[in-house]
Amino acid sequence: MQKIYDPKKEDWTQLLKRPTQTFNDIEETVKSVFKDIEKNGDQAVTKYTKKFDGVGIENIQVSNAEIEEAVNLVPDDLSDAIVLAKNNIEKFHKSQISTTKKIETAAGVVCWQEKRAIQKVGLYIPGGTAPLFSTILMLAIPAKIAGCQKIVLCTPPNKEGKIHPAILFTASLCGIEEIYKIGGIQAIAAMTFGTNTVPKVYKIFGPGNQYVTIAKQVAQQYDIAIDMPAGPSELLVVTDDSANAGFVASDLLSQAEHGIDSQVILVSTSKKMMEQVEKEVIKQLKLLPRKEIAKVAISNSKMIYCESDQQAVDLINEYAPEHFIICVENEDFYIQNIQNAGSVFIGNYTPESAGDYASGTNHTLPTNGYAKNYNGVNLDSFLRAVTFQKISKKGIQNIGNAIELMADAEGLQAHKNAVSLRLKSICDEN
Amino acid sequence: MQKIYDPKKEDWTQLLKRPTQTFNDIEETVKSVFKDIEKNGDQAVTKYTKKFDGVGIENIQVSNAEIEEAVNLVPDDLSDAIVLAKNNIEKFHKSQISTTKKIETAAGVVCWQEKRAIQKVGLYIPGGTAPLFSTILMLAIPAKIAGCQKIVLCTPPNKEGKIHPAILFTASLCGIEEIYKIGGIQAIAAMTFGTNTVPKVYKIFGPGNQYVTIAKQVAQQYDIAIDMPAGPSELLVVTDDSANAGFVASDLLSQAEHGIDSQVILVSTSKKMMEQVEKEVIKQLKLLPRKEIAKVAISNSKMIYCESDQQAVDLINEYAPEHFIICVENEDFYIQNIQNAGSVFIGNYTPESAGDYASGTNHTLPTNGYAKNYNGVNLDSFLRAVTFQKISKKGIQNIGNAIELMADAEGLQAHKNAVSLRLKSICDEN
Repeated sequence: MQKIYDPKKEDWTQLLKRPTQTFNDIEETVKSVFKDIEKNGDQAVTKYTKKFDGVGIENIQVSNAEIEEAVNLVPDDLSDAIVLAKNNIEKFHKSQISTTKKIETAAGVVCWQEKRAIQKVGLYIPGGTAPLFSTILMLAIPAKIAGCQKIVLCTPPNKEGKIHPAILFTASLCGIEEIYKIGGIQAIAAMTFGTNTVPKVYKIFGPGNQYVTIAKQVAQQYDIAIDMPAGPSELLVVTDDSANAGFVASDLLSQAEHGIDSQVILVSTSKKMMEQVEKEVIKQLKLLPRKEIAKVAISNSKMIYCESDQQAVDLINEYAPEHFIICVENEDFYIQNIQNAGSVFIGNYTPESAGDYASGTNHTLPTNGYAKNYNGVNLDSFLRAVTFQKISKKGIQNIGNAIELMADAEGLQAHKNAVSLRLKSICDEN
Repeated sequence: MQKIYDPKKEDWTQLLKRPTQTFNDIEETVKSVFKDIEKNGDQAVTKYTKKFDGVGIENIQVSNAEIEEAVNLVPDDLSDAIVLAKNNIEKFHKSQISTTKKIETAAGVVCWQEKRAIQKVGLYIPGGTAPLFSTILMLAIPAKIAGCQKIVLCTPPNKEGKIHPAILFTASLCGIEEIYKIGGIQAIAAMTFGTNTVPKVYKIFGPGNQYVTIAKQVAQQYDIAIDMPAGPSELLVVTDDSANAGFVASDLLSQAEHGIDSQVILVSTSKKMMEQVEKEVIKQLKLLPRKEIAKVAISNSKMIYCESDQQAVDLINEYAPEHFIICVENEDFYIQNIQNAGSVFIGNYTPESAGDYASGTNHTLPTNGYAKNYNGVNLDSFLRAVTFQKISKKGIQNIGNAIELMADAEGLQAHKNAVSLRLKSICDEN
């Protein structure tokens, strides 16, 4: 890991730069798949599944029999773990339910905001070597709590045309009834336009490779909302002397194993701790099955020494990490002053992987500095706040004149007239 | 207005189609302005202000002297009206402040969500014939309540290089200290990249013409968040026999005067009311200064008769209006069942223009059917929810095994190891 001591503020931008993502001009490919699926629906979906996933699928919707079979294939200890995680995630996301407050802004003018579920949502779960069933928990649980009427899940089939049992078990546990064996661009396009089999949705959630990332961007051009822009996973740990170097190293490595483009940064107010963590990283790295991936990510990563907590937190806010672990004695300072982060992990016994799986918080979080302007997926990601207002005769008499004056000053006479007519009518009644 | 009776469900999509927006291939223009401003900063901004606004500006930042002068130019009755509106908008947006709930998802696992302000935001206020000072209230008030550290306002200068006094008065009233005389594409680009004079922001808010709309889309490609996608303003009114035809007509016209592409729809369970409203529209239209605009919008608009409240609300949810006025006896049915709308106005004395100016609700709302997947601007638009978790030794002992099992099943050994190390350490202590 590269070590930097007391970097000057003018060097922060360069220092904290993420590696540029290369998308290899795949936008044209993505757009042509979209056009094809818009026109040819299911037929095109099947064609691309054959082409990209190398398997011919007859029934793209997963059957009840397949789900039942899968449920029996998941080992008991794993299914118990998933149920435990589900309970915690459910508790945390239910705590985000907001209550409606009706307020009278002026006498006779009552305003309030009500949250309504997005009626149709699509969840994308990537395939590949690891079955990311944990992401189903993170997306399906808040969607269900929000009350989304239609929840569609797409995930790519393997070469045998099957879905990993843990995926089907988790989806079924969360009450997802519509699961389709579709991956990548074709999944996002199918949910964007709808086909005879796959319903059109209003918002698409979930991670994926560069094809999925670009496909979600293209979906936005067709008026579909998405959870957030995506980038490689990242972690920043802040330590002082009080941290446990072994724990910190294990957290850095847990992020580094995601991919060679993962971002790992240690910020420390203790030079000694930096040395200790580095030693631990080298020691632990050797034992990891994914050490080849982690090694590349670690070699691109940085240890930054900061003289003060203030300098450290300023630098961290400038970076805006997806995951932020606080391992210092003065943890309240960082809790209060962190502005830009996706999810924050406090203390020596709060590894980042707890939030990935089972603490209850969501693991779909803003990467690539997006923590400056976006938050992670939460209950509100599946809702919209609709505003309501009800004005009485008294109410329009109280604010009507102000509206008339403002509408007039903005040159909008019909806006003014809508109030004037009502005021006159009330006046005539009296 | 075109009248449609009891439309079949299969015809709804066609019936409710918005007129296509034409953007005249301006994306290339927008992108070239962005590239120029990214490279040449203020110099390029000045160049485009000369080119597009026809005026050479030396100091693009509005001075205190200019603000003081403007404040004195606003008539007292108008400034009183703006203050009244500000109070109501402030009350409503303050009522949206959410409290932090710490919850224990499992014994020793404490999770919570805290809202943090987006540190730097940009507000765009269009110029043109009408000074849209009301939009400043709608954007600056929640930005201030949220606690955004830097709030930048851009608005185009007139031919004399000046800003309308009502704009400067309102901005100053809301405590906006940085106002720049920059319009259109160059304003959005300046806030995207930052120049020597104009600060870079993380999220850009505000309405505008097609150039601004495209510029905000392009800003997203440079990692800037925006409030929402934009389209022409629209209104849908639902009536039964109990409505006041004159009031309804005045509301339809208030929306129709916005532009020839404005959308106005009347849904009615009473054929008689449709006839009455039509007569009133014709009568009132003649008296409007902007009648030429309103006439075109009205001629494209629709009156739709529905046999039942259920059919009506289903159709309204399919359309997803920006503004939705409920003028029926059975108003609770519509309040409960409306899923897709930006802002809802209830009863005969709640004109849409109340929400535009002074009731307290926000007027920056989703158009073009986006009410299906987005909400309007509210306090949360200026905040991000950051999640926090703190796990005790007891806590990691409670959920650690579940994390290990799930990480293992997803093939992420380093994730597992971050927990195993901690569990082992606790075990060794005892």
